[in-house]
Amino acid sequence: MYFYPNIQVYMQTLRQLRDAFEGVVTTYCSPRTPSGLYDPVVYILQLGGKRVRPMLCAAGYQFGDRDQDKAMWTAALALEVFHNFSLVHDDIMDNAPLRRGHPTVHQAWNTPTAILSGDIMLIDVYRLLSEASPADLLPLVLDRFHHTAVGVCEGQQLDMDCEESSQVEWSDYLTMIRGKTAVLLGGALEIGGLFGGVPVNDARLLSDAGVSLGMSFQLMDDWLDTFGDAAKTGKLQFGDILRRKKTALFHQAMALGSSPHREILERWYKSTPVDRPGIQVAEIASILDKSGAGDAVLEQAQSMHENALVLLDSIPSRRGGRELLNQLMAELQGRDS
Amino acid sequence: MYFYPNIQVYMQTLRQLRDAFEGVVTTYCSPRTPSGLYDPVVYILQLGGKRVRPMLCAAGYQFGDRDQDKAMWTAALALEVFHNFSLVHDDIMDNAPLRRGHPTVHQAWNTPTAILSGDIMLIDVYRLLSEASPADLLPLVLDRFHHTAVGVCEGQQLDMDCEESSQVEWSDYLTMIRGKTAVLLGGALEIGGLFGGVPVNDARLLSDAGVSLGMSFQLMDDWLDTFGDAAKTGKLQFGDILRRKKTALFHQAMALGSSPHREILERWYKSTPVDRPGIQVAEIASILDKSGAGDAVLEQAQSMHENALVLLDSIPSRRGGRELLNQLMAELQGRDS
Repeated sequence: MYFYPNIQVYMQTLRQLRDAFEGVVTTYCSPRTPSGLYDPVVYILQLGGKRVRPMLCAAGYQFGDRDQDKAMWTAALALEVFHNFSLVHDDIMDNAPLRRGHPTVHQAWNTPTAILSGDIMLIDVYRLLSEASPADLLPLVLDRFHHTAVGVCEGQQLDMDCEESSQVEWSDYLTMIRGKTAVLLGGALEIGGLFGGVPVNDARLLSDAGVSLGMSFQLMDDWLDTFGDAAKTGKLQFGDILRRKKTALFHQAMALGSSPHREILERWYKSTPVDRPGIQVAEIASILDKSGAGDAVLEQAQSMHENALVLLDSIPSRRGGRELLNQLMAELQGRDS
Repeated sequence: MYFYPNIQVYMQTLRQLRDAFEGVVTTYCSPRTPSGLYDPVVYILQLGGKRVRPMLCAAGYQFGDRDQDKAMWTAALALEVFHNFSLVHDDIMDNAPLRRGHPTVHQAWNTPTAILSGDIMLIDVYRLLSEASPADLLPLVLDRFHHTAVGVCEGQQLDMDCEESSQVEWSDYLTMIRGKTAVLLGGALEIGGLFGGVPVNDARLLSDAGVSLGMSFQLMDDWLDTFGDAAKTGKLQFGDILRRKKTALFHQAMALGSSPHREILERWYKSTPVDRPGIQVAEIASILDKSGAGDAVLEQAQSMHENALVLLDSIPSRRGGRELLNQLMAELQGRDS
């Protein structure tokens, strides 16, 4: 059976929790047959990553004071398996060659294998949630998880719809990033809270706060691509522009920019990296700035972040949940490596 | 909300149950947005089919005497949605252009849409099961469904493995058809039984009987391709041979046949329909016969069918479950159109 570390005894920091969670993942990754089905599951789960969702689950849990660490770890594992299921399937849909610097599952194996291994992961998510949940909590956990999972799939659909269109309503774009990124972060905080015995209404507020945080991070991520300090973000500046990725900045500039500016943007984003559209990257960055898109996106990101903090302030944290969440937020904002 | 017909009042025949179930499907197929995600769900569910799994669920239910028709119909819907999820994803993996005479979802839309719509169907299966189940039944229903769903995925993996190999152990082949076809039939009978209040042990026997029946039908289906009367089966004779489908007959002939016969089989099954391997279809059929493969497969199919009947005889049927199951078996065996 799985090794389930006990949180209460010694775990106060993200690093300790993350190490503990890696132990849970390692046990989960024991070989299973048929290997053609299960090897990709082990592969994707062991590519690492920051384990943000399990850490949010652990933080939500410590807003409460119920002792069921084993159940919480199992739920945290379910959320990480779900996240990785969505990566495997999204990478096929997005035709992505790399994930965390390694070949994606459909590249390392093939598309049928990536589809089927994703499916078995999704099926296993429900087994884990079902095993984790005491009978009285199970219907609620499944309901909240369902809400989350539907949001993630709808977000991926809207993302594909957005990529095909250059005139996307801003509200639709926000709905997209809400599903694609934020809903699962909120769900992880909420489900962790429910396992910690946080009252249902407070757990829902944890979800709302997590969704606001997630959207804020996503908007900031888009903003930093053009306006951030590459030395601090550690990312290639203008990477989104070079890849013609239609981020929040693009959509806001299409809504706010002048007609000539919009025309240049359209030409650029319809071109491919091998085309020579006769436009400089710096010109696009300048339009994103002058159109007011940069300021608008930054303002929205800040407002959502503040909204999350107000919500979080209203929820009692019985153990170290609030401190853990602060550590996690600092890390995600790049203020802590 | 859904329209849930009441079984007890008037439904005695498969036809009545099937009509009632179509009403449940129609209500489920109300439009949802984003349409890019949900339209394919409606499309595949409305391609029809014999609704074998919901009918097995209804038959299992009537082995018991508990009155919760609404829950049973919701579970039956969950099983049909799951079956259609597996069709959508399997059709991508198998590169199939047609399903029930219509374009498959990945043909009518595209592969990303087919992946994502399949995912949302699988997620919705768990919502339906969760909504259907009274709290005391939910963990058991999820556990039994999990067993079923894992079997189906493992079966699809083994099917892909089998297609790539010409030396498949007979036991592996049986495991494959068990997962690919039979497990879900058993699961439908069992889950229906649980909703009908059939005791857990008897419900498990219903599952075993359903699995045996499913394997028997699958083996008979393979046998009929070569040895059946096309006028009765309604299928193109030798269709599996022409498509180079490695059915039970092929695997048995590879195990039982002489070395020259095996060599001819290998040449045929490695060729494609546009090749001219210098072998007649009738010669392959003759080898399948002379090798003893035909008799061996027929014997196995009959033995599994008898095993199912013995199991079923041991389970009390409180309402019309046994009669319904007999109707369904007759229909599946082609003795009743």
